[in-house]
Amino acid sequence: MELVGNMLYGQSGGPSPVINASAYGVIEEAKKYKNIINTIYCCHHGVEGILKDDLIDLSKTPDEEIDLLPHTPGAAFGSIRFKLSKQEEFEKILEIFKKYNIRYFFYNGGNDSMDTCSKISAFLKKSNYECRIIGIPKTIDNDLPMTDHTPGYGSSAKFLANMIAEAAYDALAYKKGRVIFFEIMGRNAGWLAASSKLACLTGYGPDLIYLPECPFDMERFKNDVLEVYAKKNKCIVIVSEGIRYSDGHYVAERKTLDSFGHKQMGGVASLLSESFSQMGIDTRAIEFSLLQRSATHLSSKTDEEEAIEVGRHAVISAIEGKTSKMVTILRVSSSPYKVEYGLCDLCDVANVEKKVPAYMINKEKNNVTQAYIDYALPLIKGENVSKYSNGLIKLTKIIV
Amino acid sequence: MELVGNMLYGQSGGPSPVINASAYGVIEEAKKYKNIINTIYCCHHGVEGILKDDLIDLSKTPDEEIDLLPHTPGAAFGSIRFKLSKQEEFEKILEIFKKYNIRYFFYNGGNDSMDTCSKISAFLKKSNYECRIIGIPKTIDNDLPMTDHTPGYGSSAKFLANMIAEAAYDALAYKKGRVIFFEIMGRNAGWLAASSKLACLTGYGPDLIYLPECPFDMERFKNDVLEVYAKKNKCIVIVSEGIRYSDGHYVAERKTLDSFGHKQMGGVASLLSESFSQMGIDTRAIEFSLLQRSATHLSSKTDEEEAIEVGRHAVISAIEGKTSKMVTILRVSSSPYKVEYGLCDLCDVANVEKKVPAYMINKEKNNVTQAYIDYALPLIKGENVSKYSNGLIKLTKIIV
Repeated sequence: MELVGNMLYGQSGGPSPVINASAYGVIEEAKKYKNIINTIYCCHHGVEGILKDDLIDLSKTPDEEIDLLPHTPGAAFGSIRFKLSKQEEFEKILEIFKKYNIRYFFYNGGNDSMDTCSKISAFLKKSNYECRIIGIPKTIDNDLPMTDHTPGYGSSAKFLANMIAEAAYDALAYKKGRVIFFEIMGRNAGWLAASSKLACLTGYGPDLIYLPECPFDMERFKNDVLEVYAKKNKCIVIVSEGIRYSDGHYVAERKTLDSFGHKQMGGVASLLSESFSQMGIDTRAIEFSLLQRSATHLSSKTDEEEAIEVGRHAVISAIEGKTSKMVTILRVSSSPYKVEYGLCDLCDVANVEKKVPAYMINKEKNNVTQAYIDYALPLIKGENVSKYSNGLIKLTKIIV
Repeated sequence: MELVGNMLYGQSGGPSPVINASAYGVIEEAKKYKNIINTIYCCHHGVEGILKDDLIDLSKTPDEEIDLLPHTPGAAFGSIRFKLSKQEEFEKILEIFKKYNIRYFFYNGGNDSMDTCSKISAFLKKSNYECRIIGIPKTIDNDLPMTDHTPGYGSSAKFLANMIAEAAYDALAYKKGRVIFFEIMGRNAGWLAASSKLACLTGYGPDLIYLPECPFDMERFKNDVLEVYAKKNKCIVIVSEGIRYSDGHYVAERKTLDSFGHKQMGGVASLLSESFSQMGIDTRAIEFSLLQRSATHLSSKTDEEEAIEVGRHAVISAIEGKTSKMVTILRVSSSPYKVEYGLCDLCDVANVEKKVPAYMINKEKNNVTQAYIDYALPLIKGENVSKYSNGLIKLTKIIV
């Protein structure tokens, strides 16, 4: 049962405000098993670090740098978007694992990363190389199945909800009418756009929310906005970057593809605002872009703690003999909020997207319901205490 | 010497993260002089509130709401962009001041608002109506003369510096090259764009900064960016919305004018990013838009405290008999940072813009110098402690 060897941790996919908190959880937990896990390595830029024999021995990293990980955005060890496909890639991974005696592999990412993880696990098993592989969920998109929610979502949701509340309040300063369009990330799942709803609990939030889960109808949209504007002289509109027409075409579609072959999005808020500007209405289009995934300064304490715990749970599970699993968060109750950690099969997660369910969307398809608020509100609770020096956030030194 | 009557406070121009902190300072200080200042009124939407006889008696506002003012963005009493010009407007103001027995008037705003304040002061004097009028500086743009800096600047600078540090860190996650353009407010003065430089003190900040103070040269700009990109495979570029060519034309000029007759700006980051996208370089254009003036959640404690103090100082000065002045902040020393409060003549401020001086700009005109850092760093120190409830910032109830 006891498997002695070295450990490897890697980050993959888009950064989140708390992926480094999971790294912290993995590292701190792994240190407890010095007789089993001899050396803690990390991949420099995910699987590419393995393929290029670019692993970093973390024993040389000062404790102060490790301690800053939970409050550091981005991906401190470098991330990658890379789809393993060739036989020689898997063989190279096996070679490197053998070279470094990697017996524990933890890979931190979203759907695509769990696919990578699952494939490596299958190949190593077939090759009779014993290595325990656990996926650690991470995505601000909250679109992984089998888990109540994903680490990263609560923090991005918290930033968006608060920043939109502040901007909605700002919008009331002038008597002059105005329509503000906020564009939020989310290709196929509208979880992040939905989180803007939480701003309404401050008294100042969005009037309309459009998710990619519902086919977009331009005429209905214009009527919705003009109706609110006629009543309130203001309108705060949230649009998910991934909204699309009933024929499947994205409202704002760029011609380029990212390295996973997904279509790149952007500019939908700007595009939608134009028709209202043409009517003589004062508009603003604000795209959160990278800000929504890097604002660790306003991360959720609940999310940060859970991100650390999923990291710890991955190590504990592997030590116990589990492999080819992903750590999951199970909600025991919403009020009081309580979670437990579990495991699911990697293959049940890989390439499956969890969308906002119908009961969380209103029947007009232009807002979310109380059921969404009940689900999401506990995830943003608690304020993170970033360390500041001279008014500037302290970030761990990135490995580049 | 002692002038007994009522008090009026108004907000004008673009909101800032701490204009409501100044309101708090004015209100709390005024309450100390109950025998002199009988009733505390505020203008609903600045001078328009006076012209429309829309004044609000603040004695009915619960203390809990007043206490939330320092942590609330926007303009809680409503703002306005309005240039007084007609004789009947001044006469109406006199009529309303008489009606409410307004003997103390505090107006909180930027250059244009100080002009308004100065004109009202001159008219009332000419009309032999005794009223002490003090302007309270406020602008995230930091472009007022006669004061070391303006309340609001430190907080917007702090948000921008930290958010850019976090996004710059995020940009390092991938090996893939990328150029990120951040667009920051500032028509003629580049103070806000300059504040991005403070991000560099975290280890992660901009490579290039373009201010409206320096004529923009497209070819030199492209060379600058490509040079950094060739070396680092990344480039973080800050552009002020107001950058313009040597012939005076803005790089991104919209055809519409705002109500003060200024040309509206926007989209310069997006415009500049295009030529690099066409070269096959991965780019992102991020416009902070309203976010940079409404992010009270990351305001500077120093700035917040000073905003309260300028409010208090306005009341104290008026009680002492001063009128037709603006409160100023005088820097006694930078290290340790120490300020005192003073007064200057309103007419010395009205319509004068203070720009970033030449010695704070590098000789290549694509960055700022250590002198800027020495000036600005003390202004962002200290973390504000917003009040949160369920993870959401608590905002004072706006008067609408």
